[in-house]
Amino acid sequence: MVNYDLLREKMKKEKLDAIAVISPENVFYSTGSLIIMQKLIRPRLAIALLPIDKDPVFIVCGIEESLAKAESWIKDIRSYIEFKESPIDYLIDVLREKKLEKANIGLETDYLAIQYFEKLCTSLPHISFSDCGDIFEELRMIKSKEEIELLSYAAKATRKAIDAALLSTKEGDSEKDLANKIRSNLFEMGADEITFLVIGVGKRSSIAHPLPGEFPLTEGEIVRLDVGALWRGYNSDVARTASIGPPNNEQKEIYKTLIEIYRKVIQNMTIGKRFCDPFNLCKKLYESRGFSFNFPHIGHNMGIGLHEHPMVSPEDKKSLQENMIINLEPFYRSPDGYGYHVEDLLLIQRDGAKVLTESNLSDQIPIIE
Amino acid sequence: MVNYDLLREKMKKEKLDAIAVISPENVFYSTGSLIIMQKLIRPRLAIALLPIDKDPVFIVCGIEESLAKAESWIKDIRSYIEFKESPIDYLIDVLREKKLEKANIGLETDYLAIQYFEKLCTSLPHISFSDCGDIFEELRMIKSKEEIELLSYAAKATRKAIDAALLSTKEGDSEKDLANKIRSNLFEMGADEITFLVIGVGKRSSIAHPLPGEFPLTEGEIVRLDVGALWRGYNSDVARTASIGPPNNEQKEIYKTLIEIYRKVIQNMTIGKRFCDPFNLCKKLYESRGFSFNFPHIGHNMGIGLHEHPMVSPEDKKSLQENMIINLEPFYRSPDGYGYHVEDLLLIQRDGAKVLTESNLSDQIPIIE
Repeated sequence: MVNYDLLREKMKKEKLDAIAVISPENVFYSTGSLIIMQKLIRPRLAIALLPIDKDPVFIVCGIEESLAKAESWIKDIRSYIEFKESPIDYLIDVLREKKLEKANIGLETDYLAIQYFEKLCTSLPHISFSDCGDIFEELRMIKSKEEIELLSYAAKATRKAIDAALLSTKEGDSEKDLANKIRSNLFEMGADEITFLVIGVGKRSSIAHPLPGEFPLTEGEIVRLDVGALWRGYNSDVARTASIGPPNNEQKEIYKTLIEIYRKVIQNMTIGKRFCDPFNLCKKLYESRGFSFNFPHIGHNMGIGLHEHPMVSPEDKKSLQENMIINLEPFYRSPDGYGYHVEDLLLIQRDGAKVLTESNLSDQIPIIE
Repeated sequence: MVNYDLLREKMKKEKLDAIAVISPENVFYSTGSLIIMQKLIRPRLAIALLPIDKDPVFIVCGIEESLAKAESWIKDIRSYIEFKESPIDYLIDVLREKKLEKANIGLETDYLAIQYFEKLCTSLPHISFSDCGDIFEELRMIKSKEEIELLSYAAKATRKAIDAALLSTKEGDSEKDLANKIRSNLFEMGADEITFLVIGVGKRSSIAHPLPGEFPLTEGEIVRLDVGALWRGYNSDVARTASIGPPNNEQKEIYKTLIEIYRKVIQNMTIGKRFCDPFNLCKKLYESRGFSFNFPHIGHNMGIGLHEHPMVSPEDKKSLQENMIINLEPFYRSPDGYGYHVEDLLLIQRDGAKVLTESNLSDQIPIIE
């Protein structure tokens, strides 16, 4: 949840009189209210107006009023009647009421759609707008104690959900059978929603995001899993690769090499390093072992958003800081078209990166028997 | 999937030289490729450029290239490197390549964010843009045979998933226990994703979208469920209300009256009626029975989108047409704060509305024993 004092400091620095928050992630982050329909029914806008020196206002659809009142710390909640009234008109009215018609307002220019923006500009010709994406990016990239606890639980539960499903799956079961076991495990452990569940057997392992299908887990093949869920609004994201039946030497060796590289990169993720450093190290290690490397990133920060910045990418020169939460996920695509992938959650601490997933990072490929 | 000839007809009528599709729903509808990460990682844009008299181009992130190639009918797929290259630059290049720098391009102004739009306008100062939202809305509101089959299966499976879970749940179980049974049933029957699962016991039944919690299903109370899932990109959405233990007279009567009204409204949903007609009838019936009525809509079209237009709302004067798929969902909030809700899927046919959910619409409230 947002630290409102810190937010105001950043607003002051950016010369913003107020911020009008509209993306589902930042609305949850700044109001504390998790309105799940915001993502599913996009025109049903929820908007938080956060002025620097006045009381905030939370504009929601009438149908969500009771939830917003129950969950948000913002007291002034205004609800509009869907189809009959426009949430943007409500925002315009509140901006006028707060005497912000000539103010500088922060907007999320990567989310707010043209249609709404044009209405704002037409109705309030003397107002000015700046992007406020960076402010939220910076605030959200350092996690609070409560966020770290929730994300740790979620990561560990997701890892356990996968491990348990792999143990109770047998050769000949389908991708869907394995998927359903993981799903039950996740929900039993308290996930609110499964955001994605990718399973690919055989050469399907190299497709990035295939939906689990009726494809059988056939002996001699590998299977790749990438699983994400939501836990009270926060993400988990864990990837694993397993062999079906005893692995052959090539499978064994590739996996062992991948884990060896993985461990070295994790050791490199210390406070003060830049995000491009572990990326470049990983690339170098891949190449020194004859592994082709052709990836735009090998990891990402995570929280309310699945991919948050900074990314572990060559472009990202930001530094690793204490209490950042990072998913590290090296991927290897073999020349004959198989995808190997491991992903755990890391917490950056003073003494190095801690693996929150509590996987043991064994260099032996898990086996489905 | 889109009928490209029909789309082109509509483009011609609207004097559009091309459409640049960017929302997840319309990208799936017009390309046939279901890129699940489009919703989860929004900046990872997928864009379909559909010119009226040239070959279409599908721009995707490199990581999704294999999936797009496997699933889409569009042959010209261009992939950008995430972070290093911008998908909007790719679109600009393709527009130039197709000699559309001075053309009139259709955009989804309720989805495309300001940031991307400004880049387009700056790079292509002689191009003009119009909204193309209505074109897709009109195309998507009449379902094909394949769409009707998929949506029917999904609706029926969701209804069965709820019914089976209610039968195997007992007094004292929690909302979460009930939720987990529904979830397993849905996945066993082939759902790819659960989009929302709302369960509220007691007075929580009147909150629109609460997440299932540890609240026990206590004898004498009612519980309200509203469940949606995705099936190969298409939605299901079913709501039910049940009593825990034998219902008292008030609960019985309210439910009976709700179903009586529900049946009458369904009978009213015939070709040629306007969408406001069943809404107004429902309102009149509520009021004649002393039921308070204060809702912006009582139903909606559905398909790739959860709420598609037309809505069953007083503002919507469009007519019901053959092969529309409509969720009808009257809700009743009792004066003492309980929410009663039923929702089924209807197919508009020449001889009236067919209930695809195959519920028997009994006027006796389901009982958890």
